[in-house]
Amino acid sequence: MVLFSGFSFAQTATSVYLMPWPQSLEVAQGHLKIVPNIQLIIPNDSSDRIQFSATQFLRNLSNKTGVFITNGFPLTVVDNSNTSIIIKYDRIGKLEIHEDESYQISFKNNQITLTSVTDLGALHALETLLQLVNNNESYFYSQEVSIQDEPRFTWRGLMIDVARHFQPVDVIKRNLRGMASVKMNVFHWHLTDDQGFRIESKLYPKLQELGSDGLYYTHEQIKDIVKYADNLGIMVIPEIDIPGHATAFLAAYPELASKKQDYSIERNAGIFHPTLNPINPKTYEVLDGLFSEIAPLFTSKYVHIGGDENEGKHWDENPLIQAFKLKHGFKTNHDLQTYFNIKLEKILAKYGKKIMGWEEIMTPNMPTSAIIHSWKGVNEGKKPLTSLIEAAKKGYQTVLSNGFYIDLMQPVQEHYAVNPLPSNLDLSPTERKRVLGAEATLWSELATPLTIDSRIWPRTAAIAERFWSSENKQDLQHLQERLPYISDQLEQLGLTHNSYKNVLFRNITKSENIAPLQILSKVCEPLKIYTRNKGGTEYQSYSPFTLFADACTPDATDAVLFNLAVELFLKSPTENNKKTILKWLKKWQANHLAFKKLTVNPLIKNITPLSKNLAVLSEITQQKLTGTAVDSNTIKALLKAATKDIQDVELTVISSFTKLLY
Amino acid sequence: MVLFSGFSFAQTATSVYLMPWPQSLEVAQGHLKIVPNIQLIIPNDSSDRIQFSATQFLRNLSNKTGVFITNGFPLTVVDNSNTSIIIKYDRIGKLEIHEDESYQISFKNNQITLTSVTDLGALHALETLLQLVNNNESYFYSQEVSIQDEPRFTWRGLMIDVARHFQPVDVIKRNLRGMASVKMNVFHWHLTDDQGFRIESKLYPKLQELGSDGLYYTHEQIKDIVKYADNLGIMVIPEIDIPGHATAFLAAYPELASKKQDYSIERNAGIFHPTLNPINPKTYEVLDGLFSEIAPLFTSKYVHIGGDENEGKHWDENPLIQAFKLKHGFKTNHDLQTYFNIKLEKILAKYGKKIMGWEEIMTPNMPTSAIIHSWKGVNEGKKPLTSLIEAAKKGYQTVLSNGFYIDLMQPVQEHYAVNPLPSNLDLSPTERKRVLGAEATLWSELATPLTIDSRIWPRTAAIAERFWSSENKQDLQHLQERLPYISDQLEQLGLTHNSYKNVLFRNITKSENIAPLQILSKVCEPLKIYTRNKGGTEYQSYSPFTLFADACTPDATDAVLFNLAVELFLKSPTENNKKTILKWLKKWQANHLAFKKLTVNPLIKNITPLSKNLAVLSEITQQKLTGTAVDSNTIKALLKAATKDIQDVELTVISSFTKLLY
Repeated sequence: MVLFSGFSFAQTATSVYLMPWPQSLEVAQGHLKIVPNIQLIIPNDSSDRIQFSATQFLRNLSNKTGVFITNGFPLTVVDNSNTSIIIKYDRIGKLEIHEDESYQISFKNNQITLTSVTDLGALHALETLLQLVNNNESYFYSQEVSIQDEPRFTWRGLMIDVARHFQPVDVIKRNLRGMASVKMNVFHWHLTDDQGFRIESKLYPKLQELGSDGLYYTHEQIKDIVKYADNLGIMVIPEIDIPGHATAFLAAYPELASKKQDYSIERNAGIFHPTLNPINPKTYEVLDGLFSEIAPLFTSKYVHIGGDENEGKHWDENPLIQAFKLKHGFKTNHDLQTYFNIKLEKILAKYGKKIMGWEEIMTPNMPTSAIIHSWKGVNEGKKPLTSLIEAAKKGYQTVLSNGFYIDLMQPVQEHYAVNPLPSNLDLSPTERKRVLGAEATLWSELATPLTIDSRIWPRTAAIAERFWSSENKQDLQHLQERLPYISDQLEQLGLTHNSYKNVLFRNITKSENIAPLQILSKVCEPLKIYTRNKGGTEYQSYSPFTLFADACTPDATDAVLFNLAVELFLKSPTENNKKTILKWLKKWQANHLAFKKLTVNPLIKNITPLSKNLAVLSEITQQKLTGTAVDSNTIKALLKAATKDIQDVELTVISSFTKLLY
Repeated sequence: MVLFSGFSFAQTATSVYLMPWPQSLEVAQGHLKIVPNIQLIIPNDSSDRIQFSATQFLRNLSNKTGVFITNGFPLTVVDNSNTSIIIKYDRIGKLEIHEDESYQISFKNNQITLTSVTDLGALHALETLLQLVNNNESYFYSQEVSIQDEPRFTWRGLMIDVARHFQPVDVIKRNLRGMASVKMNVFHWHLTDDQGFRIESKLYPKLQELGSDGLYYTHEQIKDIVKYADNLGIMVIPEIDIPGHATAFLAAYPELASKKQDYSIERNAGIFHPTLNPINPKTYEVLDGLFSEIAPLFTSKYVHIGGDENEGKHWDENPLIQAFKLKHGFKTNHDLQTYFNIKLEKILAKYGKKIMGWEEIMTPNMPTSAIIHSWKGVNEGKKPLTSLIEAAKKGYQTVLSNGFYIDLMQPVQEHYAVNPLPSNLDLSPTERKRVLGAEATLWSELATPLTIDSRIWPRTAAIAERFWSSENKQDLQHLQERLPYISDQLEQLGLTHNSYKNVLFRNITKSENIAPLQILSKVCEPLKIYTRNKGGTEYQSYSPFTLFADACTPDATDAVLFNLAVELFLKSPTENNKKTILKWLKKWQANHLAFKKLTVNPLIKNITPLSKNLAVLSEITQQKLTGTAVDSNTIKALLKAATKDIQDVELTVISSFTKLLY
């Protein structure tokens, strides 16, 4: 829980901090105390999922409350308690689209009953119950509620790119745990790209040997993660991105390239030309072998084949490919890519899999069995939802990622505002049904195992609510009120999005004295959209990601509060509201004094202008607010200096200062 | 780096913060600047180890300094820099005892040369070099030095118990990384015990299926860790603890037990009776099969067979076993265990392995090919080193762990003071040579993946110095001066012994307001020796280890400083020294005021007496020091209350308060 010092959000009457918010919630007066001999009663023939999750639930409950719960391993029913949680479900759920994930929670006397059609619903109910745990001064309890809940969308995904920066098994697992806690059910695993081929092939071992720097997942690790995800009710969709984004692939098998040249793993970010050769039979032989190995590792019916951003430069440069196009009457490279995709679709069908791909695969002859992954939007010069609408109209099932690119460091409310299926969309009911849901995507050019959690959480919890809850759930204040609780809950489940910061601060100050950096970071955010890594060449994959920018996150907490306070003051310039602002201004001036006392080193030196700009702006604003005249040229110069990109970080209070100073 | 506020350690002239301290060090005036195009030049035919460690070195150097080092993957020599690090070694080292691990570091112009006989020496040199990195206001550099270094002992181990609490692969790996950074070279992996059988058997899968709650290492994971350790120059010794400590084993194979009864995984801590049946041929058949699988997974020549704490109760209760003893003329259960061990020795010899075991295996007929692991001491009613001396005299090689039980939460100086081979020991040169070295041991009854790093580090860095450096290296002040730097370095390499604390504090306060707990924890330590888990039954393996005691660590930093200040004041009661003490006393009184403002919850409530006791003692001591009379009965009562065990935590400033108040 963040203390909203200087600004307070209205409490809900209920003090229920759930995310995603359930479809129907009634809050009763009573509450059920968490006691040591609380019993969790599961059906005798429970699924692996239920056994795993029920056991974990009790441990998490114990860790959260400090209550020494006696119900250990395995779950045993001892008839010595009035307090019990009963799980009831009809059948084992399948990790497929349109599976029933609904659940109900009811309280009666000292008994909580979780009822659902499938065990997947029961898992969701357990997560809700864990979030319901609250406390008074004397004990922990669960608020008595009556909940009926089900997801708005059947596809609630998170994509993690493990190609640009490899993410070890434990990183994936803790993020899966986070996903489950906010009821996401699809993990899209972006396994290959120009910068790395991250999945073992036993048939073509050069792929990982030459394409991964030794950083890849073995089959056993894949199976382990798929099983772990299954226990959490999460379907895993592997992505092998072809025919473009294939530099690492071609570093291993240059003979499959469209252009004869040397290939080595790409270290920069961006769009590159290396592309598989679609007219070489060997290409399909290798892909057939590869998918014959990969398909059985995953239980989901879909394999994501990427298909994005192939600009066809190497196809244009290859006379044989040009001749092939001519011979087959392919007018464009898109036609050729369709040829490639259709062959791929047949290969995958052999192994019982269907195709999912980025929107570029939606070409005239593409079978409608494919899922179209809609990703382009304003940044790509397109109107949002364009390909989603087109796909649904053409008969494809479709999933939206535009608006959910969480690597772009945008504020939570921007993502929260994106509606994957607005009611005013010109789609028939049948077409609307084809919109399966949406996925947040974390591209990892700038995200390492140390920082990645902070790039995903807690914003993705709000996105998960957008995917699960009613589209009418739009109240930003209620979101902001719950988010800190959920963020702390995610930390307690193992995510490191909070704790990693001090690790970096200590590395920067080379000391325990990190308070000035902590305070400064609360108004600093890493540069947004694609501005931090200009041209994709400012950072290589092996650059240091231990900088102040890496310790900063979107939604810098004090900036959010200050900006709200300024808005309030401008609307209602009372003495009290002014006082709130002056408090912030004094804090930042004092912080710069503390900052200047830090033992200087190059890392400190680099970010000193940030602290100084903040302090100087605070000082001048304080003067203005307290009636001292300030020279407008000075203001202009200061604001200009403070807006400058310093160490890939922006002060996200500048617009508020601008408002106060003009 | 900890800021020693209120107390300052003398700086060494050199500002070189190495641990372990090298055998010979000369510090020159110059320093070599870390520049982006710094080159690391390794032999063309470098070992896997060197390629791995050299690449990691550059990344760590980059992460530590923020310098964008251009030398990426793979290491390439580009002739555009005057600054280079050259690695030269004669041959690939073997991970065996008595291997040459020496190295030299020399600086000339802008070139650092690391010279060694084996690549293992080169790894140590790289770790030293990374520790040498320092900075001024403008840039990072390495101090120019001339180092000749080699270990005092060939066996410098850390044992981690993964049976009482399972520790996932990433936990093991980050601790291996920490070990390498302080030049430890043996990882002793305590894989089985009453509370878990943590290694997969393909021949006897019930072992992990019924003996591990699903928490075990697969063969692939074992091989991965052994390879990772090898790359760091660390030998891995697996321990299968038999015939006692076998409850989990017998949960899978009750037919191999000495007593017919139900067996299930043990959840408490302590010494238990379940023991393999040494007269059942099936016992040896299973062990033979098991070791045939396990032996090839490890490259080291030794397998640790435990052998400790078998009290033979179930042997005494079994008439067939009694008859067997009579028939074979075995007078004691020790004789019977020797029979068991000798059979085991033959089985292991088949698979190319020798035996290592806890000191109990040293019985008259035990072959001297075994390594005797000396562990008993004062806590077990024995004079320290007893079994070590006996082993060396009897012709066994031997390793010391008594004095290095780091799970007992003792202060660093107690371990640092333990000399595994004092010069005055009554041993001949040949016998002395049999003392291979020593091992720190982390038993994990009270250590989870979240807390374990803090139970190992940074104290184990000091222990590593005891194992590596000259026995004359005893200067506690120099140790305390370097330890904070090394601790931060370990954090930057991935250990979580610092960062986990706030995770627990946030869980306790259910808020971001954790400062009062942080300050309080700096004078609090978890109960020591075996007092926290009385009788082994206060905590089960599934109890919550998210308590304040778990967030506390030995060597509570403010307590160390306060205790030193009090010592100084008592020796020299100047106004200045008194002032230092009064500053602490005021801090703790103020902290309790802040503590009382925390939103109360049961977890806060539990530890409030700790904060209050500290505040009240501070207040009364302040009165005494400033000349106000204090009633001696009040003092007595307060000290008594403050000495009481509260939430398994002790205020480690009480003895200082006692000194000041009497």
